Amino acid sequence: MTKGKIMLVGLGPGSHDHLTARARAAIAEADTVIGYVTYIRLVADLLAGKEVVKKSMTEELDRAIESLERARQGKKVALISSGDAGVYGMAGPTFEVLFQAGWTPDSDIEVEIIPGASALNTCAALVGAPLTHDFCAISLSDLLTPWPVIARRLDAAAAADFVVALYNPKSGRRTRQIVEAQRLFLAHRRADTPVAVVKSAYRPKQRIEFTTLDRMVECDIGMLTTVLIGNSNTFVRDGLMVTPRGYANKYDVEGGTTRAGEQAGRSLSTGLAGWLETIRASGESAEALAHRHRLPVDYIAAALADGNVVDGEPAAGEALA
Amino acid sequence: MTKGKIMLVGLGPGSHDHLTARARAAIAEADTVIGYVTYIRLVADLLAGKEVVKKSMTEELDRAIESLERARQGKKVALISSGDAGVYGMAGPTFEVLFQAGWTPDSDIEVEIIPGASALNTCAALVGAPLTHDFCAISLSDLLTPWPVIARRLDAAAAADFVVALYNPKSGRRTRQIVEAQRLFLAHRRADTPVAVVKSAYRPKQRIEFTTLDRMVECDIGMLTTVLIGNSNTFVRDGLMVTPRGYANKYDVEGGTTRAGEQAGRSLSTGLAGWLETIRASGESAEALAHRHRLPVDYIAAALADGNVVDGEPAAGEALA
Repeated sequence: MTKGKIMLVGLGPGSHDHLTARARAAIAEADTVIGYVTYIRLVADLLAGKEVVKKSMTEELDRAIESLERARQGKKVALISSGDAGVYGMAGPTFEVLFQAGWTPDSDIEVEIIPGASALNTCAALVGAPLTHDFCAISLSDLLTPWPVIARRLDAAAAADFVVALYNPKSGRRTRQIVEAQRLFLAHRRADTPVAVVKSAYRPKQRIEFTTLDRMVECDIGMLTTVLIGNSNTFVRDGLMVTPRGYANKYDVEGGTTRAGEQAGRSLSTGLAGWLETIRASGESAEALAHRHRLPVDYIAAALADGNVVDGEPAAGEALA
Repeated sequence: MTKGKIMLVGLGPGSHDHLTARARAAIAEADTVIGYVTYIRLVADLLAGKEVVKKSMTEELDRAIESLERARQGKKVALISSGDAGVYGMAGPTFEVLFQAGWTPDSDIEVEIIPGASALNTCAALVGAPLTHDFCAISLSDLLTPWPVIARRLDAAAAADFVVALYNPKSGRRTRQIVEAQRLFLAHRRADTPVAVVKSAYRPKQRIEFTTLDRMVECDIGMLTTVLIGNSNTFVRDGLMVTPRGYANKYDVEGGTTRAGEQAGRSLSTGLAGWLETIRASGESAEALAHRHRLPVDYIAAALADGNVVDGEPAAGEALA
């Protein structure tokens, strides 16, 4: 009997143009293709002659169990997810089911994960460049996650000025979570923070709406929608949402020359070494510094206490002493 | 003169297997290919007959400026990034340069962004399923970002139990940032939190190391490394790093039946509606609830005050009144 195989395939947005060569080859190689009915439809023309198992949205564990059954029969199974198979995708539940069944990587069933662009990547590509700085992905689905866990993440991401991609923002039944998310964000971010609402990216029913944080709940939002909330520097210009990387912190925007006190290719003067030097030289208490920099007082205290050496060189304050 | 075009191409990890069809076509279509020398090398065999402009790592703005110059001459330019062109990639700086030059989307130069799997997706695919729950990407580079901004994000992500992907964790010069990141994380996470250190994913020099939060700075970490830090539920088993999605919150692991009080396909009993019901029925003060749930007191107060209606139905407390 041939060795079975489970291939966890990330389709990317679902248009064939954005399939990777490996994702396409994995589907071609598969005896059986298993997935949520909407994803099966995206690759329908690649499935001739294959067993196709369509599942509904909530049957993730069933999809994994059926994959394991087929693989035990020596079949090659492509278990497909839109976006990336690892991001809220089938990779997690599949390993949970496999481990529970006593599977190990050196057993007769091989597992391969084939990465793809996740919804945050593809939606971002359609609206401009919102992810040029640090970002979070947060799912608003409380089918498996307690609400306080989700709310804490929303609050933390909003407070720390991350760009945020909301996955599963709303369904027929779950209509209130996006309102709560908005409330948590508005406590930290400006009402006019740019928001992009992207539905069915790169698919025939694609729809892009630009809005602002205070209006986002009025948009048409559903289970095929990703909501991208900008950080405090994100702007929309000419229909493009852009989060600056921070070049303006170092370079004069007009001439391209380096700002006073900054060096091309080096950390900012407010980077780690410069910042440590400044807080040590300030003479302020850890409490005052913690408050000013919105950082834990323990962290500031440790930074003040330990760091006589930064990056292998004495800090300036030490060298002068 | 033909209309110029700038294509911002995300290569994914860089192996041809993981190129999307569109990324490959964009390179084929280009007159000029511009990129960091390491990325150019990844696609060297696709570049015959093209003008190739290699740039060093810090010359992002130069890459964008040269792309604009070529596009103004009517050329098609592929500006390549590894991973996704939008994630710490060239999409942001390019729009910054284009806007500054007075470009608009209806000008003679077309811009297309071609998404790809980012390092967090590809590194995750190699280590198991670490991104099955909410995650953040944080760059430790302080070349353009002040350290307190980075530190606040590390602290917030650690406190709110996100899985975290650290980009640009360390360079020849920047060796201390990863140590500070570890310190910030250890204030919130267990010392034995699983960490994966992935270098050159899907490339010939690929190297994967599993470690724990308290040991991660001992690993071989450089500019081609992504560091994945698990959340409080992430585990490593048989050489695979997995973050559970939360099925165990709803289903009995053995029998697959639904736990008491839970319904398949519905929000958890601790989901938004159930949680609101519980806090309203508790009779506790907003302050006490805020402390218990580690959420802002204003948020709790608003939830207690406004919510007579949840998801279009009276909350249970109301219905009984």
